[in-house]
Amino acid sequence: MPDTALAGQAMHALMAELFPICRSLTGDGVRQTLARLSEVVPYQVHEVPSGSQVFDWVVPDEWNIRDAYVMDQSGRRVIDFQASNLHVVGYSEPFAGVLTREQLLPHLYSRADLPDAIPYLTSYYSRRWGFCLSQRQLEALGPGPFQVKIDSTLAPGSLTYADLLIPGDSEHEILLSSYCCHPSMANNELSGPVLTTFLAKSIMDRPKRRYSYRIVVVPETIGAITYISRHLQTLKDNVAAGYVLTCVGGPSGPTYGLSRQGNSLADRVALNTLAHCGEDYRVLPWIERASDERQYGAPGVDLPVGSLMRSRYFDYPEYHTSLDDLSLVTPAQMAASFALYNEMIDALEANRTWRVTTLCEPQLGKRGLYPSLGGQHDINKQMFVMNALIGYCDGSRDLVAIADLHNRPVRDFVEAVALLAENGLLLEGGG
Amino acid sequence: MPDTALAGQAMHALMAELFPICRSLTGDGVRQTLARLSEVVPYQVHEVPSGSQVFDWVVPDEWNIRDAYVMDQSGRRVIDFQASNLHVVGYSEPFAGVLTREQLLPHLYSRADLPDAIPYLTSYYSRRWGFCLSQRQLEALGPGPFQVKIDSTLAPGSLTYADLLIPGDSEHEILLSSYCCHPSMANNELSGPVLTTFLAKSIMDRPKRRYSYRIVVVPETIGAITYISRHLQTLKDNVAAGYVLTCVGGPSGPTYGLSRQGNSLADRVALNTLAHCGEDYRVLPWIERASDERQYGAPGVDLPVGSLMRSRYFDYPEYHTSLDDLSLVTPAQMAASFALYNEMIDALEANRTWRVTTLCEPQLGKRGLYPSLGGQHDINKQMFVMNALIGYCDGSRDLVAIADLHNRPVRDFVEAVALLAENGLLLEGGG
Amino acid sequence: MPDTALAGQAMHALMAELFPICRSLTGDGVRQTLARLSEVVPYQVHEVPSGSQVFDWVVPDEWNIRDAYVMDQSGRRVIDFQASNLHVVGYSEPFAGVLTREQLLPHLYSRADLPDAIPYLTSYYSRRWGFCLSQRQLEALGPGPFQVKIDSTLAPGSLTYADLLIPGDSEHEILLSSYCCHPSMANNELSGPVLTTFLAKSIMDRPKRRYSYRIVVVPETIGAITYISRHLQTLKDNVAAGYVLTCVGGPSGPTYGLSRQGNSLADRVALNTLAHCGEDYRVLPWIERASDERQYGAPGVDLPVGSLMRSRYFDYPEYHTSLDDLSLVTPAQMAASFALYNEMIDALEANRTWRVTTLCEPQLGKRGLYPSLGGQHDINKQMFVMNALIGYCDGSRDLVAIADLHNRPVRDFVEAVALLAENGLLLEGGG
Repeated sequence: MPDTALAGQAMHALMAELFPICRSLTGDGVRQTLARLSEVVPYQVHEVPSGSQVFDWVVPDEWNIRDAYVMDQSGRRVIDFQASNLHVVGYSEPFAGVLTREQLLPHLYSRADLPDAIPYLTSYYSRRWGFCLSQRQLEALGPGPFQVKIDSTLAPGSLTYADLLIPGDSEHEILLSSYCCHPSMANNELSGPVLTTFLAKSIMDRPKRRYSYRIVVVPETIGAITYISRHLQTLKDNVAAGYVLTCVGGPSGPTYGLSRQGNSLADRVALNTLAHCGEDYRVLPWIERASDERQYGAPGVDLPVGSLMRSRYFDYPEYHTSLDDLSLVTPAQMAASFALYNEMIDALEANRTWRVTTLCEPQLGKRGLYPSLGGQHDINKQMFVMNALIGYCDGSRDLVAIADLHNRPVRDFVEAVALLAENGLLLEGGG
Repeated sequence: MPDTALAGQAMHALMAELFPICRSLTGDGVRQTLARLSEVVPYQVHEVPSGSQVFDWVVPDEWNIRDAYVMDQSGRRVIDFQASNLHVVGYSEPFAGVLTREQLLPHLYSRADLPDAIPYLTSYYSRRWGFCLSQRQLEALGPGPFQVKIDSTLAPGSLTYADLLIPGDSEHEILLSSYCCHPSMANNELSGPVLTTFLAKSIMDRPKRRYSYRIVVVPETIGAITYISRHLQTLKDNVAAGYVLTCVGGPSGPTYGLSRQGNSLADRVALNTLAHCGEDYRVLPWIERASDERQYGAPGVDLPVGSLMRSRYFDYPEYHTSLDDLSLVTPAQMAASFALYNEMIDALEANRTWRVTTLCEPQLGKRGLYPSLGGQHDINKQMFVMNALIGYCDGSRDLVAIADLHNRPVRDFVEAVALLAENGLLLEGGG
Repeated sequence: MPDTALAGQAMHALMAELFPICRSLTGDGVRQTLARLSEVVPYQVHEVPSGSQVFDWVVPDEWNIRDAYVMDQSGRRVIDFQASNLHVVGYSEPFAGVLTREQLLPHLYSRADLPDAIPYLTSYYSRRWGFCLSQRQLEALGPGPFQVKIDSTLAPGSLTYADLLIPGDSEHEILLSSYCCHPSMANNELSGPVLTTFLAKSIMDRPKRRYSYRIVVVPETIGAITYISRHLQTLKDNVAAGYVLTCVGGPSGPTYGLSRQGNSLADRVALNTLAHCGEDYRVLPWIERASDERQYGAPGVDLPVGSLMRSRYFDYPEYHTSLDDLSLVTPAQMAASFALYNEMIDALEANRTWRVTTLCEPQLGKRGLYPSLGGQHDINKQMFVMNALIGYCDGSRDLVAIADLHNRPVRDFVEAVALLAENGLLLEGGG
C-alpha cells in the first residue's frame, strides 16, 4: 500500500519544480516537462512533425518563446513575460514595434470580473499576437507610446508526447491519459500529468498486475487526436477502461465525468469507489465533457473513458488564470486523488466474474468459514460478503455489480473472494 | 412560417360557420361539413354503404333529421330542435304522437349538475328516440299532454368520410386524423377537423416535405374502423407517426395522450416539443385513451398514434353539453394548438439519424465554425449544439434523442445540423 | 371460497397440538409432526439415511432426546427439558456428570437483552452440548456443584421430510415449501408447515386446477438441499413459481421477499396481490434472504421462489426464543396469511396471455357488454376492465401485467376475461 500522504508531498514538490516552465501545445517547455517526468517512470517520448495529418487535423508549427514585453517610455516593462508566462497569448507570433496606446489595446486581454488575475488565452490555429494582463495592470497602463516585443518562433518543428506501457498478465489495458500543454497553472494543469506519473510508478511497483496499463501524456486535443490516430485499433481492441486525469489537485470534492457509454466498466468502478469514499461527490454526464475524453469517446473511437476530477475545469473561480497557482493545490488534495485512483485500480484488478462451484449453498461451516453455533443472527461483515458471493456469483455478474447490489465497496469483497476461491468454491468465468 | 395568429382567427371563423350544422355519425350534416372543409384543401370524400362489414362492426343506417319538437297544449314548442340540434338524442328514430307527461318523461334526458346545459346523447346502435333538455327546462315542463314529433329518417344510405394524401419525398407517412360526427359543440368537436384542415393547408404550402401526410376526417369510432379496415396494410407499412386531433381549442394547457407503445416517434416528438413549449402540460398513458387512438393503437393495428389536446374530453365541465360553444374556443387557443402541431411537424421533418464523418472531433475552427481564440469558456448556443452533434451523431441516435439528451427542443439543432452537413461533417444514416 | 376465519381457528388449534413436540433437523419429533400433518392431506413421508451426500453437504446423524436437566444439590431441576425443550441446545450430544459452577457456565446460553426468554440455539454440524436458559434463571443459579444430564442419542438414522404432488391440467407446478425443524416456537416455525398444509387442502378442494402443486415440508437448509438434490431437473423443468412459507402467523403486516430474479412470476403475482391487499407491506430484495429461498434461488438452481411472511425472522423481538409462543400467533393472523396465499394462487390460476380476436375494438354493444346510450362518461368497473382487456390483450402481456398497468388486482379482471372469452373475443396464446 503506497503511503499516500508522502506521495502527496512528493507530487506537490514536483509540481513546484515544473510550475515555472512555459509549456504550450508544442515546444521546448513540453520537452523539458516530459524529460523531468521521465525521471520518475521510463516514459517513451515521441516527436510528430509539424504538418502531419492526424484525422481531420494537421499538427501545427512548433512554438517557442524566449522573451516578451510591453515597455513604456521610461523603459519599464509594464507587461513582462519574465514575471509570468501567462502574459503572452499562447502561440503568439513574433512581433517588435512601437505602438500607440490605441494600437496596442486590441492586443490586450484582461478580465474585469477578476481584476488581479492574468487570464490564460491561446491562439493555436489562427495567427495573432497578444498580451494577457490583470485588469489592474490595464487600468494603470500609461498613455504610451509603447515598445512591444515578442521574441517567439513559430515554425515547422514537432509535437511532443510521452507514453508508457506497463505490461500485465493480460493484453487488456487500463488507459490513464493526461496533458502537459498548459503554462504556469497548477490545478489545470500540472496536477494531472504529475498524478498520472505517480500512479504509473505505483502501478509498476505492484507485485502483480492483471491488466496492462497504458500511460499517456500529450498536449490536449491535438495530442490526444494524434495519439488515437496512431493507435486506434490497439486502443479499440485492448482498452477495458480508461480515465482522463485533469484538475485533480483543487480544493473541491470529487467530480466524476461519465464516459459516453454512461455505464462502462470505467464508470461502474468509479461510481462504486465514490459511493464509499466518504466525501460528497458529483457525477456529470458526458454531455459536460471538455477535455480529452471528447476524443477518446468520440463516435467511431468509442473508448470507455471517464474522468475523475477535483475542482473541475470551469467550476472554480481561479480556472484559466494566474490565480490557479501552487497554493490552490495542496499535498493533501493530491494525496486524496492519488488514493481514489489507486482504489479504482484495485477494484479493476479485483473485478472478475465468478461462478459458485456447488449447487445450492456450499457448506461453509465444515471449512471453518461459518460459525458452528446456529440460531444467532449477528451477521458480521465477513459472513455478509460470503453470503453475497455464494448467492450472486452466477457467472453473469462481475464483482463490481455484486458489490453495488450490496451497497458496499469492491474492497470489502476481496478477502472473501480469495477464501472462497482457495476452498474451491468459486471458479472464474461466466456461464 | 405561417402566421399563427391569423390562422387562429381564420379557424375560429370557419368553426362559427360550421357550428350550426347538425352532424352525426352519418347523414347530410357530415356531407355539408366535409364539403366546406374541401374548399380549404382538396379532400377526397368517400361514401360507404350502410350494411358494409368493417372488421367486427357493420356500417349503420344513415340518419337525417329535419325537425323535432315537444309542443304543449298552447302550441308552444317547449323543446325545439330548431333552437339547438342537441335537443334530439342522436340517431332518434322518427316519432309522432300525443303523450301524457308520464309517457314523455322516460324519453327526456337532462343533467342535474349542469342545470342550464343541454346534454349531448346518442343511440347509434340501439333504436330509440329521445330529447335532451336543460334541467331548468325540465323543471318548467307543464302538465301535458304533449304533441311530440321527430321528423327524422333512419334508413340505408352511407357513411361519409374524407381523406387527403399530401405526397412527400418518402412513402413514409405522418397521419393526422380527426372526426366530424358531433353536432353543435365547439371544442369537442369542431376544433379537431378545422385544425386538421388548416394544418393540411400549411403542410401543402411547405416548399419541401420529407414525409407524406395522410389527413383523415371520419366519424368517430365506426369511421376510424372503416378507414383502417380499408387501408390496414398501407397504414402499417407507411405510418411513421400519427396524431388524433380532438379537443384542441379549449382554455386548458396541453394534454398529450401517449400512443400504446408509449415511446413511439409520435410520442418522442410530442414530448420534446411540449418540454420546451413554455406552458404547463400533462402526459397521459394510453390506458386513458377515449377517441380514435383506440382504433389506431388496437392490438394488431399497432399504429404509433398519440393525441395532443387542450381541454381534453371528460376534463372540462362543458364537455358534451351545449355549454361547449364558440365562446369556449378562442382564436388564440386554436392558434396555440396550430403552433404546437406545426412545431411537431417541423421536428418530424428535421429528425434524422446522422453520423459524424471524422474519427475524433472535426476541427471546426478551420471551417469558421468555432472561435479561434482558445481558453475562454463562454459557450454560446451554437457552439453547444455543435458539440452535442459531433459528440452524439453516432449513427444510432436520432435528432430527437440527441435533443432530449441535451434538454433542448429539436428546433435548436436545425441550423447547426445544416452547417455541419454542408461542411461534409455529418452524413445521414445509421451504422 | 374457503372460510378463512374458520381456517384460522383450525390452523391455530393444530399449532397448539403440535407445539409441545421437540422437533429438530432429524428425529422422532419431525416424524410425529409430519404424521399429524398427514392426517390433513396425504403427504408422502421420506427417510434419507444419515451419511447420504447431498450436493456439498452430508446428511448428519439423527438426534433424539428424552430428558435433560441441570439439578442442584437439593435435587431440584434448575434447568429442565421437561419444562421447555428450548432449554437444550439442539443436537446436544449425550452427557452425564457432576460439574462445578465454573465447569458448567461455558455450556450455558442466555440473552441479557431478553431476561425472561430462553434463547433457541443449535449445533448441528459441530459436536457439543449445552443448555439455554433465561437471564433470570442464570442469575438465580446457585453455587453448585450440579448434576448434569442430557439423555440424547446422536447416531446414524435418517432425515425425514414430506411432500405431496397435487396434479393439475398442466405439468407446470407451483411450489409451496415450508420447514418443520424448530422445537416449541410458534411463528417461527409452526405457522409455516401448518399454513402450507391447510393451503394444500384448499388446493385439493378446488374443482379445477390449471397448475400442479408441489407441497414440500422439510427440515430447513439440509432438508431443502436434500430435496433439491433429488428433484433438480424436475423442479427446473416444471416450477413456474414458488414460495417459502415461514413466519406467517405473527402480528406484523406482510413482508415479501423477492426471488433472486426479482421480477419472476412469483414476484409479480405477490406484488400485485399485496398492492391491493389493504395492509401496509414491505418488499425485500433477495439479498435479505435467510430461509430456504437461499437454496431454491441459488446459482444453478435458479428457481423463481419468493417468500410472503408476517413478523419475518430477525424482525420481531421474540424471534428464536421461548417468547415466540402461541400467544404471538393468532387465528386472525393465520387467516390473513391464508387469504393472501389463496389470492396469490387464484391470480396464478387466472393468469394467462390472451389475444383479442378482432382488428380494431370489438363491438361490445351488440353483445350486450356495453351501454347502448352514448355520450355519457360514467365508466363503471366492468367497462373499465373490458376496455383494459381489449386494448392490451395483444398476445405479449399476461393478465398480471395488464392488471399492474391498470393499477388493479388480478381478481378484478377474472369475470370480464370470462365474458370476453365466452363471446369469442379473446383467445389464449401469444403472438
